[in-house]
Amino acid sequence: MRFSKLLIPTLKEAPKDAVLPSHIYLVRGGFIYQVASGVYDFLPLGKKVLDKVKTIIKEELDNAGCQEVQLGFVTPTELWKKSGRYEKYGAELLRFKDRKSNEFVLGPTHEEMMVELAKQFVNSYKQLPLNLYQINLKFRDEARPRFGLMRGREFIMKDGYSFHDSHEDMVREFNLMEETYRKIFTRMGLDFRVVEADSGAIGGEGSKEFMVLADSGEDTIVVCDGCDYAANIEAAKRKTPDSQAEAPEALLNRFRTPDIKTIEDLSEFFSVDPYYLIKTVAKKALYDEGKSEIILFFLRGSDELQEVKATNSVGANELIDVSEEELEAAGLVPGFMGPVELIRNAKVLEDTPPFHEEIAHPNIKKVFDETLKNASHMICGANEKDYHIVGANLTNLKDLHFADIAQTKEGDQCAKCGGKLKFTKGIEVGHIFQLGTRYSEPLKAEFLDQNGKNRPFIMGTYGIGVSRLLAAIIEQHHDEKGSIWPVPVAPFEVVVIIGNIKDEQQKEVGEKIYNDLKSKGVDVLLDDRKERFGFKMKDFELIGIPYAVVIGKKLADGCVELIERSTLNRKDVMVDDIVNSVIESMQ
Amino acid sequence: MRFSKLLIPTLKEAPKDAVLPSHIYLVRGGFIYQVASGVYDFLPLGKKVLDKVKTIIKEELDNAGCQEVQLGFVTPTELWKKSGRYEKYGAELLRFKDRKSNEFVLGPTHEEMMVELAKQFVNSYKQLPLNLYQINLKFRDEARPRFGLMRGREFIMKDGYSFHDSHEDMVREFNLMEETYRKIFTRMGLDFRVVEADSGAIGGEGSKEFMVLADSGEDTIVVCDGCDYAANIEAAKRKTPDSQAEAPEALLNRFRTPDIKTIEDLSEFFSVDPYYLIKTVAKKALYDEGKSEIILFFLRGSDELQEVKATNSVGANELIDVSEEELEAAGLVPGFMGPVELIRNAKVLEDTPPFHEEIAHPNIKKVFDETLKNASHMICGANEKDYHIVGANLTNLKDLHFADIAQTKEGDQCAKCGGKLKFTKGIEVGHIFQLGTRYSEPLKAEFLDQNGKNRPFIMGTYGIGVSRLLAAIIEQHHDEKGSIWPVPVAPFEVVVIIGNIKDEQQKEVGEKIYNDLKSKGVDVLLDDRKERFGFKMKDFELIGIPYAVVIGKKLADGCVELIERSTLNRKDVMVDDIVNSVIESMQ
Repeated sequence: MRFSKLLIPTLKEAPKDAVLPSHIYLVRGGFIYQVASGVYDFLPLGKKVLDKVKTIIKEELDNAGCQEVQLGFVTPTELWKKSGRYEKYGAELLRFKDRKSNEFVLGPTHEEMMVELAKQFVNSYKQLPLNLYQINLKFRDEARPRFGLMRGREFIMKDGYSFHDSHEDMVREFNLMEETYRKIFTRMGLDFRVVEADSGAIGGEGSKEFMVLADSGEDTIVVCDGCDYAANIEAAKRKTPDSQAEAPEALLNRFRTPDIKTIEDLSEFFSVDPYYLIKTVAKKALYDEGKSEIILFFLRGSDELQEVKATNSVGANELIDVSEEELEAAGLVPGFMGPVELIRNAKVLEDTPPFHEEIAHPNIKKVFDETLKNASHMICGANEKDYHIVGANLTNLKDLHFADIAQTKEGDQCAKCGGKLKFTKGIEVGHIFQLGTRYSEPLKAEFLDQNGKNRPFIMGTYGIGVSRLLAAIIEQHHDEKGSIWPVPVAPFEVVVIIGNIKDEQQKEVGEKIYNDLKSKGVDVLLDDRKERFGFKMKDFELIGIPYAVVIGKKLADGCVELIERSTLNRKDVMVDDIVNSVIESMQ
Repeated sequence: MRFSKLLIPTLKEAPKDAVLPSHIYLVRGGFIYQVASGVYDFLPLGKKVLDKVKTIIKEELDNAGCQEVQLGFVTPTELWKKSGRYEKYGAELLRFKDRKSNEFVLGPTHEEMMVELAKQFVNSYKQLPLNLYQINLKFRDEARPRFGLMRGREFIMKDGYSFHDSHEDMVREFNLMEETYRKIFTRMGLDFRVVEADSGAIGGEGSKEFMVLADSGEDTIVVCDGCDYAANIEAAKRKTPDSQAEAPEALLNRFRTPDIKTIEDLSEFFSVDPYYLIKTVAKKALYDEGKSEIILFFLRGSDELQEVKATNSVGANELIDVSEEELEAAGLVPGFMGPVELIRNAKVLEDTPPFHEEIAHPNIKKVFDETLKNASHMICGANEKDYHIVGANLTNLKDLHFADIAQTKEGDQCAKCGGKLKFTKGIEVGHIFQLGTRYSEPLKAEFLDQNGKNRPFIMGTYGIGVSRLLAAIIEQHHDEKGSIWPVPVAPFEVVVIIGNIKDEQQKEVGEKIYNDLKSKGVDVLLDDRKERFGFKMKDFELIGIPYAVVIGKKLADGCVELIERSTLNRKDVMVDDIVNSVIESMQ
């Protein structure tokens, strides 16, 4: 194609709100145009990259036996109500009524729709397994759409759903999808990690994320330096930590700690390692149908609460902060909260001054981090202004709710090999889930098994952020001049730049090289614009086409220049050799 | 691919509301599934056909120099308000608010969005011409979604928009698009006509529709038996008709016509050809911002009102019926209405009994069909109960609003060649418009011309009903057993049917033929299901794959059968020759 005929509106200025390189270069390179917050047009170059990304995904999925469908984007709310997600999804689910007041949503994901399809048409184990996918629009009414294609509202997703008659077969497909996704992202030239992940609002039994490593990633990934363990911080496990520091010896007692409210102050006040302090975090958990409650989360002072883990531990939709007023209204003393009521119930306080009844708060749900199992010699808030308890002992306490709610830290030990855990940043581009019967059961999607019995489908679900991939690729492949597209997803593989379009010889040679490359199947752009050479070079660097062939003054010696975008290395090549030279470089 | 692994849920029963063959066979053949009124899922076969249709469209458009983009589907209302279509579009435009109460619509078409894009990025005549298109979702909240994919709410459309610096260049592109569309529909194996059309709500200067000829078409097409003239009935022109019958001689006078209200009764009562009667049709015209008014349309008694022409003649959005009560309240006498007030104003009534003032209705807008120009010897209602006027003469009347508002009839004469006009039915699958500055002007989308002057873009717009094409193809290609897909858009080109899957030899030969065809690039399906042969044949006929290779009992003689779906002709072919035989048949 000819640059002079194409709409490639490269810009000098980046959008004011753009901070990420991908956002800046996709807009400046003429790939996308924002029409509303989180809604983008794909211009010719953007559409071209999108199609290459889609084609790679489709080829690998079809090879793996998946079948492509296309589901309705505007979908009736009915199924969302049956699955219980109509409320759970919150404001991100865009709802509206049609002219006859029927309720619809713009599909943010299609579990319900796909289960409905299987329910209609799959009746027997003989039709299983089945893996259906689509590459289609999605809409999520994000509170803060940002970063260009990274976090939009209208976006393109590949969502796949598999149906099985057994857990084993679902796991087999899950593993096949992991392998297929690895092929897909490898073909796109991405450096990525497959990490253990939280299953989030989708629900289910286990999941893995595909993370493109990039400093700008919104996700923190925990990786082990000793083995291949990798996990999203939201799901990262660790070997239960212990402390080298001496435990504070003390009899169970109340201790006056005037104005000592933070872990730091407490640690200093008692000269005690934070490992031996109990940190109390109060949150309000939000559930379906507008229900909510205050929950106290207890951790070692050396740990931080991991909110996603904490949310999962109580089955809430979301955790939000609680005001001091609300805490006080619930009988809690901010700054001095602790699991005192449990300690009192365990009747270990006999030798100590009696607790006032009013400090008890038996109706408040409490969750203990699993590292507190059998913890002893602990110091915690007394739920009384200016008082802490020392010598607290959690051993022998019954019916406590323990869960992994602490955030893994850099330097923690790997649960698998004992190696050292490190943090890195990633962009989530894929997520695969072992769903089980999370949707098939409430939606009563069943099949007849070999014994003639009705059973709900065992399911997996598999997603790829298709439009986000354009951003992720650039985050990993750019420099200070612009994007550097890997060949398989580049808008063009080569650009032939005619240095001076008024020079008849340059023009003629440029046209010939362009046509020769085209006839060899190379996706080539001819920069035939009446612009200065420097201007064309800047566009080449900004757009990030992997190779440029420059027809310039060296033509007098029978030479053209071949420039590699990633290194900006240049070499002179004889005109007759340039086509082969380009093709070799691309391999 | 293997039938046993694919989700192809063929059904014995058609949906209860399905009347069209395409609706019945798309559902029964396992191509689509309805999720809500006018919203469909595309199952694997439907998606496959859709992709083939899309590919043909894309190839031809790209060859013609068009550039593919993808615009936001969820679009801000702002531009719709600027273009004046926010009100005009009515209830079909689905409107909603996001979580921040910003107003959006689901794009039913994208003129506004595309103009906005050009406005942003095209500043100079040097960047023109430009033809941008997308193949994307659309949503129109139809009052009566019906006929499967024929008239849905969510559907897939190709919409293209071209930008020019002159009317001539726009017409050149319009003609190029006509030629390109002809190639596209020809490649799909369609018998179609290109007809002159009404420009409807899109507005503009001229348009043509691409009509697939089919008895079930919702559109009536007028074609000439003498030349290539063809037009939608909404836009069809004709030679001004005259009558062989004698004109009724009478002096201008009131005439008592008790209870004679219809054209038929009047024609009989006076023994006069309806050509000499004036038919009055009262309608209420609806305009923007809720404005409306009663309008009287006058035609010869031998003609019928063409509502689209009539709507256009007064620039209304829509015409609706008026109740007798409303007519009476406006001073009109139903059954006896006529253009009497104009006649009185023309002072030709001096010799006749005086008219009562109350029959005058000077404030009601009146439109005369152009065939009434200079009409004389006419009979019309007197706007007085039981009275008509005879000897009415429209010559010498000034300032009448004449327009072509009559419906062309079968047997009328062609305006181009005088040939005989005939009716046929068609399905609209494409529509191209000469838009001019209908959108660029209100949206202030301008470019600098060669003289450095700002001018609005001259535009064209070009649409194809992509998902509707699946239905249109079947309407033209089916029999009583099912669909008969043309090869270029068939879900598979050939199906290899293993008659008895338990017969090892049949299976082996079937697999070999399947693999050989695949390796030759044929899009082949292997029916390897454990079903009866008759069941597999019925599915082949219902789905409508163009060719079947049946491996059955004749294998003993080294033969397989090749069946052509369109004719159901069968012929025996030696196993070694079958691959070549299939490939030859397809050409």
